[in-house]
Amino acid sequence: MASPSASPPPATPGLDAGALRDRIYIVIFEAETPGGKLFDVALLWLIVASVVTVALESVESVAVRHGTTLRVLEWFYTALFSVEYGLRIYSARRRLRYVVSFFGIIDLLALLPTYLSLFLPGMHTLLVIRALRLLRVFRVLKVVRMMGEAHSLLAAIRISLPKISVFVGAVVIIALVVGAAMYLIEGIEAGFTSIPRGMYWAIVTMTTVGYGDIAPKTDLGQFLAACLMVLGYGILAVPTGIVSAEIVSHHPVPPPGASEAVPEDDEDRAMCHACGAMDHPTGANFCYVCGSAVD
Amino acid sequence: MASPSASPPPATPGLDAGALRDRIYIVIFEAETPGGKLFDVALLWLIVASVVTVALESVESVAVRHGTTLRVLEWFYTALFSVEYGLRIYSARRRLRYVVSFFGIIDLLALLPTYLSLFLPGMHTLLVIRALRLLRVFRVLKVVRMMGEAHSLLAAIRISLPKISVFVGAVVIIALVVGAAMYLIEGIEAGFTSIPRGMYWAIVTMTTVGYGDIAPKTDLGQFLAACLMVLGYGILAVPTGIVSAEIVSHHPVPPPGASEAVPEDDEDRAMCHACGAMDHPTGANFCYVCGSAVD
Amino acid sequence: MASPSASPPPATPGLDAGALRDRIYIVIFEAETPGGKLFDVALLWLIVASVVTVALESVESVAVRHGTTLRVLEWFYTALFSVEYGLRIYSARRRLRYVVSFFGIIDLLALLPTYLSLFLPGMHTLLVIRALRLLRVFRVLKVVRMMGEAHSLLAAIRISLPKISVFVGAVVIIALVVGAAMYLIEGIEAGFTSIPRGMYWAIVTMTTVGYGDIAPKTDLGQFLAACLMVLGYGILAVPTGIVSAEIVSHHPVPPPGASEAVPEDDEDRAMCHACGAMDHPTGANFCYVCGSAVD
Amino acid sequence: MASPSASPPPATPGLDAGALRDRIYIVIFEAETPGGKLFDVALLWLIVASVVTVALESVESVAVRHGTTLRVLEWFYTALFSVEYGLRIYSARRRLRYVVSFFGIIDLLALLPTYLSLFLPGMHTLLVIRALRLLRVFRVLKVVRMMGEAHSLLAAIRISLPKISVFVGAVVIIALVVGAAMYLIEGIEAGFTSIPRGMYWAIVTMTTVGYGDIAPKTDLGQFLAACLMVLGYGILAVPTGIVSAEIVSHHPVPPPGASEAVPEDDEDRAMCHACGAMDHPTGANFCYVCGSAVD
Repeated sequence: MASPSASPPPATPGLDAGALRDRIYIVIFEAETPGGKLFDVALLWLIVASVVTVALESVESVAVRHGTTLRVLEWFYTALFSVEYGLRIYSARRRLRYVVSFFGIIDLLALLPTYLSLFLPGMHTLLVIRALRLLRVFRVLKVVRMMGEAHSLLAAIRISLPKISVFVGAVVIIALVVGAAMYLIEGIEAGFTSIPRGMYWAIVTMTTVGYGDIAPKTDLGQFLAACLMVLGYGILAVPTGIVSAEIVSHHPVPPPGASEAVPEDDEDRAMCHACGAMDHPTGANFCYVCGSAVD
Repeated sequence: MASPSASPPPATPGLDAGALRDRIYIVIFEAETPGGKLFDVALLWLIVASVVTVALESVESVAVRHGTTLRVLEWFYTALFSVEYGLRIYSARRRLRYVVSFFGIIDLLALLPTYLSLFLPGMHTLLVIRALRLLRVFRVLKVVRMMGEAHSLLAAIRISLPKISVFVGAVVIIALVVGAAMYLIEGIEAGFTSIPRGMYWAIVTMTTVGYGDIAPKTDLGQFLAACLMVLGYGILAVPTGIVSAEIVSHHPVPPPGASEAVPEDDEDRAMCHACGAMDHPTGANFCYVCGSAVD
Repeated sequence: MASPSASPPPATPGLDAGALRDRIYIVIFEAETPGGKLFDVALLWLIVASVVTVALESVESVAVRHGTTLRVLEWFYTALFSVEYGLRIYSARRRLRYVVSFFGIIDLLALLPTYLSLFLPGMHTLLVIRALRLLRVFRVLKVVRMMGEAHSLLAAIRISLPKISVFVGAVVIIALVVGAAMYLIEGIEAGFTSIPRGMYWAIVTMTTVGYGDIAPKTDLGQFLAACLMVLGYGILAVPTGIVSAEIVSHHPVPPPGASEAVPEDDEDRAMCHACGAMDHPTGANFCYVCGSAVD
Repeated sequence: MASPSASPPPATPGLDAGALRDRIYIVIFEAETPGGKLFDVALLWLIVASVVTVALESVESVAVRHGTTLRVLEWFYTALFSVEYGLRIYSARRRLRYVVSFFGIIDLLALLPTYLSLFLPGMHTLLVIRALRLLRVFRVLKVVRMMGEAHSLLAAIRISLPKISVFVGAVVIIALVVGAAMYLIEGIEAGFTSIPRGMYWAIVTMTTVGYGDIAPKTDLGQFLAACLMVLGYGILAVPTGIVSAEIVSHHPVPPPGASEAVPEDDEDRAMCHACGAMDHPTGANFCYVCGSAVD
């Protein structure tokens, strides 16, 4: 843990520490330079590899045969990520702000389980939290169209959020009333052992998942379930309609042949250095994705 | 039960009873004043808490340990709601109209089970009907955008209603014909014990819920089921398309930067005092949400 | 069977047979006059009642207790429908054309099972075919908005038909390839006993029905199934998108306040007398709904 | 295998070999002439018949009774397809290009299993790969509207591809995090035996397939599952919305009465001779459907 923050300062005495820190900063936090892009792509694959390692370790047949290899790999990845975490703290312009930012905390949480597994066996399963770090490296895709797509998707979802909240509220109330009714009608022998379990069944049914672990057996229960399903049709249509409408209305009718130009942000101020989100309005104080402060 | 209707009149002799009644009316039935807003938010949380209490009581492991606490809480909530119901009747401008309105009946039904549970054990499960009262307190959200969203959702659904009726009719006819066919093809050993049960299976399949408690076993039955599923694809697309089209056509292409202004209703006549719904046309006689008369 | 065709001619000697036949024709085949509307509504409820009778008879507990009542009712309904069928043949302008039209055949098929059940027990279950006759009485709704809605729905589906055919073809090819792959991977012990059964599973999965009666058990099979499900997401989006797009493009943006006027067809030529479909183009030779010839 | 490539050259000495080769080319690779159309339709039905033969052979009850017939048929179809493959190589303008093109490889793969089954029993099940050849004969439908439809569908999907990639990435990350959480919460007794299996369950749930072979049993697991399902609602809406929006925006509002004219391609250069795709831009080097080079 001490090595990363200690190693950069003594390097290259001819270069002053500030310039080195700036260079590390650009490579680690930005994606515009070739070095930064290379770093992000390498990090992306490293994270994928480490997550696959953890996932494989949970498969018993694999763990029995390749357990040692996988543990060694895990410590190797954790060491690399520890160095990277140290470099991030070292080079961040506002260190505390990075540490308490969304991705700063994720970066730390992605390291802890391996170290904790020395004391508490089983903790390393939590390492899948590293998958969340993948969100960060999506910024490497920014220079291509992909990022514009992700942004327009996020925008459509964000604008639809109030409508979706009302919708989720309505779904929960319906699930509560129907779940309680089924608890009264079907009783314990059909699996409706409590009102919360009835609500679980109602949500499984309305979302058309339909496991079948709990299913109505009486005629009245089946009739009520059939009504709920047809109702679920209409309910399912609502979020789809909302999101469709948002996407349609924000990309109305493209003039034929016009490419969807993604304007290049030529200034640094619009980017969040904690998560890489872009397109912040000029006077923005906080990142609209991760909530950390924007310079 | 007697206390709420009795307590308000003797209070504050310096104030005449009509002014007090008006003040109570504004706090309980309206959401524009700070007092009214506070009352609605408090009621919202009280209802949520009482519903959670009833739900928890149905979980056996919780009921065994905390049964007495939960029963006491239930009586506490019921007492509060009884006082509120009394105050509503006392302050309502047209008392009988409130009592027989949609929310007047819900308010009463939300009280009865606790009292009835003194004579008939098990009745208090019906208390989840209190969840329906949550619909009332949605009006507290009116002053924020949320209400506009709920209204535009309701409008889209209401306009689509005739199309949706035809659609539900078609679904029922298909379910009947296919359900009867499966009853003939599969017979009792596969779970198709009657035509209504076959219809239940057809609806479970068409809505893509698919419990699997009843599933075709013969080749012909599985072929018919596969056809029904692919048909279900198209059927599922219809309500989604209808609702999407309505939402799109009623919010066409917003000019960029324009906020969706929710016009303030500056006059009282447009609001339903039974359920809080707004935007009634000038000459409206009945509330378009709850059906109670509008002044 | 002989009674219906025999009874009308001898009636009311003061009225010539042609005028009576015309009057019967208007009542039975058209829905514009009060008598025609009344007839259609009565027929609608009679069909619903007869279908409910058949459905109830299939429920064993009901059949044991009320079997005789239900059989009597069934013969009563069949007698009424036989009379109606006879009157339709008698009054139809082109009798053979009616008999071989879509609804002419349905009308006959709806009668046969009861008579056949005298010789072959169990045949009366086929009586649910009467439900298809409900399609005919939808024309009674024509004078209200409902019919316009049903027509615009049908129009959207009809225009989307070529796209939907390509889509269904693609679904069947994917189901075939994936089903055969799962048959090879999973084998018989997981329920994939043949390629057709594998296709059945693939369709159950792609349509997100997911009974669970057949489910992959090996790692490779589950991986392939997960890929098919995510693919199914995209596949599911296609018919929804098609139908949505049709509905949106045919009801673009209604000018606010404009009622969706359903133009009255003031001439008889535009209506199909076999099924009641309307809005045929002026020179149409065949009904676009049931395929029978139009005058 | 030797016969097809050997037979054409010695035929009809009065006709020079080049003209014959051109004529075969036109019949086999193009669909504009009557002979070409007939060939494509015959091929379509032959492929369907051969695929049905393979599928039937996998059904045990059928294989026992008609096994020999089916094997003979299979060799008959394989012989015909071998001749066709030889003729394709013989007449193709650039032979190597055809052999290594997408459809060239499919054509070969569709032959191999029958020959390999002489040495390795069970290989002939792979013959369902012939179903992929059906994609080729879709070009016969080109002259009708159908092809235009398939193209506009493909275009909508292709344009949506970047958005869909981001979407699939998000689904996989959510499945990973939730699957790992369920592996920790539910453990082995509920079927969550490893993180990959947890991911499989998460995808089964999010796509609303819901087999029920793995289902949460603990309260916390069921709560998390319910959240995932409601989230799945929103997730399901995204691809639907994307595809809908594309379809809507590319077929905006057709002027009433305007037929969607499919422009006839009067020049040969626009068609891919490997897969029959059309509408390549004038200077195109590669087919946008199958990737093989365009003249």
